[in-house]
Amino acid sequence: MGINAQEGYPPELSSEEQEYLLTNLKDWSIAHGLAVRPAPSFVQPAQDPAGVLAATAPVTLFPSLFPRNCFEEGLAIQTAYNELYSAIARDEEWLRGIVEELIDIDDFVGKLWQTHLAVKKEGYVQNLSLGLFRSDYMVHVDQGNPSSPSGLKQVEFNTIASSFGGLSSQVSRLHKYLLSINAYPSSATSLVKEEALRQSKSASSLAQGLAAAHKAYGPSSTGRALCVLFVVQDPERNVFDQRHLEYALFEENGVRAFRLPFEQTLSHTELDTDRTLLYTPPNSPLTTYEVTTIYFRAGYSPDDYPEEKEWDARLQLERSKAIKCPSVLTHLAGCKKVQQVLATPHSPHLKRFLPNEQVAAKVLSTFAPIYPLDDSEAGQEAKKLARDVHSAARYVLKPQREGGGNNVYRKAIPGFLEKLPQTHWPAYILMEMIEPPPLTNAILRNGQLQRGGVIGELGVYGVCLWRNGTDDKDAGQVLENWEAGYLLRTKGDQSEEGGVAAGFGAVDSVVLTGA
Amino acid sequence: MGINAQEGYPPELSSEEQEYLLTNLKDWSIAHGLAVRPAPSFVQPAQDPAGVLAATAPVTLFPSLFPRNCFEEGLAIQTAYNELYSAIARDEEWLRGIVEELIDIDDFVGKLWQTHLAVKKEGYVQNLSLGLFRSDYMVHVDQGNPSSPSGLKQVEFNTIASSFGGLSSQVSRLHKYLLSINAYPSSATSLVKEEALRQSKSASSLAQGLAAAHKAYGPSSTGRALCVLFVVQDPERNVFDQRHLEYALFEENGVRAFRLPFEQTLSHTELDTDRTLLYTPPNSPLTTYEVTTIYFRAGYSPDDYPEEKEWDARLQLERSKAIKCPSVLTHLAGCKKVQQVLATPHSPHLKRFLPNEQVAAKVLSTFAPIYPLDDSEAGQEAKKLARDVHSAARYVLKPQREGGGNNVYRKAIPGFLEKLPQTHWPAYILMEMIEPPPLTNAILRNGQLQRGGVIGELGVYGVCLWRNGTDDKDAGQVLENWEAGYLLRTKGDQSEEGGVAAGFGAVDSVVLTGA
Repeated sequence: MGINAQEGYPPELSSEEQEYLLTNLKDWSIAHGLAVRPAPSFVQPAQDPAGVLAATAPVTLFPSLFPRNCFEEGLAIQTAYNELYSAIARDEEWLRGIVEELIDIDDFVGKLWQTHLAVKKEGYVQNLSLGLFRSDYMVHVDQGNPSSPSGLKQVEFNTIASSFGGLSSQVSRLHKYLLSINAYPSSATSLVKEEALRQSKSASSLAQGLAAAHKAYGPSSTGRALCVLFVVQDPERNVFDQRHLEYALFEENGVRAFRLPFEQTLSHTELDTDRTLLYTPPNSPLTTYEVTTIYFRAGYSPDDYPEEKEWDARLQLERSKAIKCPSVLTHLAGCKKVQQVLATPHSPHLKRFLPNEQVAAKVLSTFAPIYPLDDSEAGQEAKKLARDVHSAARYVLKPQREGGGNNVYRKAIPGFLEKLPQTHWPAYILMEMIEPPPLTNAILRNGQLQRGGVIGELGVYGVCLWRNGTDDKDAGQVLENWEAGYLLRTKGDQSEEGGVAAGFGAVDSVVLTGA
Repeated sequence: MGINAQEGYPPELSSEEQEYLLTNLKDWSIAHGLAVRPAPSFVQPAQDPAGVLAATAPVTLFPSLFPRNCFEEGLAIQTAYNELYSAIARDEEWLRGIVEELIDIDDFVGKLWQTHLAVKKEGYVQNLSLGLFRSDYMVHVDQGNPSSPSGLKQVEFNTIASSFGGLSSQVSRLHKYLLSINAYPSSATSLVKEEALRQSKSASSLAQGLAAAHKAYGPSSTGRALCVLFVVQDPERNVFDQRHLEYALFEENGVRAFRLPFEQTLSHTELDTDRTLLYTPPNSPLTTYEVTTIYFRAGYSPDDYPEEKEWDARLQLERSKAIKCPSVLTHLAGCKKVQQVLATPHSPHLKRFLPNEQVAAKVLSTFAPIYPLDDSEAGQEAKKLARDVHSAARYVLKPQREGGGNNVYRKAIPGFLEKLPQTHWPAYILMEMIEPPPLTNAILRNGQLQRGGVIGELGVYGVCLWRNGTDDKDAGQVLENWEAGYLLRTKGDQSEEGGVAAGFGAVDSVVLTGA
């Protein structure tokens, strides 16, 4: 797709066209659970103490244009990414090296590593691990040569709590529905047509991943009823996203799941003598379930651990015989430092995990170069690039700490580094900016409609179930590995005038363009 | 079911049980479109100008006990009721007699009749009529002999805009879901069990009725695209109920429908020279559809006709070649006076429409006796019953005018009549009170939870498609006739202390009891 393929898309709507589109969008979304609990700034909790209100989830009015070759590349490469990250999660020695570099600057990584070590000392009693991954990309257009074919560049790889798989399936249905009822004006239908839309199978496919782990766990040795445990934040505005997975798990796979607020873990779970994880639902104190699989939709951020008891909770879950989605090591495999060392130019690490050269080359082609700001050769190179206003203009400076601090963009980098003591520089990495093609869309969010410049981020889900350990002949075996649908998340383009307000993100689906 | 079968049902819930039930109920309902737009008293329109908020529809926490024999009787008799009311709607002569008795006291009936006469003069160009009916009943327990088997007694028969078919399918799914996740405490599960619950097929079955009419209409003679038109109120809080029918019509039957606010009828529809009804969606002024079927979810109340232009609109729709659901005559067949003359003791009318004696007897057994307050023999009898405080205690006085005035109950009747000039008495009918068994339930409505005495009203939906006219050999032919699922509507029992607040109604589903 040339960068101008989007001209005139989406078309401006007459007030009657907009009324028809919005009315149908709003009714369909609520009728099909494409919804969120309203933000406190929209509906104050005191107004709705019982919590019965919901709102249309933030969505785009139109599906967004996306180059077909990039979309297909992202889906095709997912099983390689699953293989890569499951191999990293199995390689404790290698991860230790990563963690040691972070431990002084990032308490959270340190605490996670301590949790792993404590269980390792005692010995793990479950050698299966489940990953419900999401690899996030942007389309990159070479600004020096805009007519060259665009490619996907990875933004990040999520190994824990990959969200929006439930809503993504619904938004692609919504856009197909709107097309089918002629809510898109005929001027748009040369682009938006049935065969160019893609239904995301994410809700169903991720649920199938949980079901595969549940089954692989095997029967209860004591005849207890089995369940999956969704460990969640409370309150959770994005609850319907999670519920769609839970309903698919139950209806399509016959597997029961319970929601457990992370902070209540120690009140409602315990370990049996063989470290079987037992869950007693508070509503039914006489019934105890055996947990086969722990699905974390909480615990990924330092904010989820306000007290030591949350670390005790994480340890209890990690010690248990339940299959973790993810284990602590899998969680750590998702930290930015891992992405960085893989994407450092001339890195030797990728081939350690992906011995097949062709597969490794394909994965490599989706990396944007990332440099450390340390004393290594690549680090020296990076410092030069970062201090020069001209070269810095193609880069972003990101803190290594998970979830901490803001990014520094382009020409602001040299000045920022000048004020920062050099000893603190290794806390940052320098990443080549991904330059997405300029797009336009309209977003409905919190009851407000905004239209303007946006950028799209493609997430591709992956399911991977594997055996850890080094002892037996099956160690390292990958039992399940599949691509599990996609997410398009569209946000206001902060860099562009007339863009949708910063942070104004929405779920979206793709209209494929190009041959 | 004896009247005490409900003792201890539904059970009192511990706070943990209630929390689990409510959390799951609220999330499931929004995820599955069991929703309404919030009342203005709950969310003021200025707070949500775009209208993106929705709330859990008013629902019962538990399904309500319902005698199996009564439930099965109601479903089994529906096709006879369809036959009865379609026969009444075809019998213009007979209806004229009914209308003439009402015309002086009820302008609305008079205006409807004038609309019919105007079209009749010109000649109807469509001889097919569709009814999406709902017959409403309560379980009646003979207070003089409470151990005798209870039976169904009809409250009313709806021939226009029968609502809640969309939500009813969802609430029976909700209650099944809550049972399947153990949200009902074990003390309740001797009653609430899978085989005692009944899934309502109403959404799908009513949509199939609309599809049958659409198909029977035949192809467009001018090659235009065909559609069904939902003529609606605007705004409509109960929009998801209607949308579920529309989605089922589209997804399961491939039939497009549009929503047209009744007051905008003349702006967006017109009649072709052969009175084909043409609809031009405002969002797409170059595309004109041919309307096969008009589904009225508005136009049933005098309030829907604030100006003469709404009567012009009704006339335009009635004149058209589209199949009306319902036609004016079918609409009139649903007026209370019809129910009254059928249910007047020793009435000769029922056998006029249901020549099969067995069928007529079954229908008759569901009538509660209704008396006119006129000079007829039954009327004289009624006046005696109504003026005596003892006998009046078993009756309710209802105004004949559609949607007008309040009912007068039991011992209040003699005093009320005393103050009313005798010339106004014929505007009322006297109906034997139906004495439903006392039940208890908890209702979540507008974010408030109430528990207390309730009464349940069973609605049974029916689809009927028939030919009008007297000219050809097929006149009077019934093309389609089926029972189309059920609705249980549960309301606060106003007559009982500790009841749920008056008017506090909710959608519900049945737990069948008894052999």
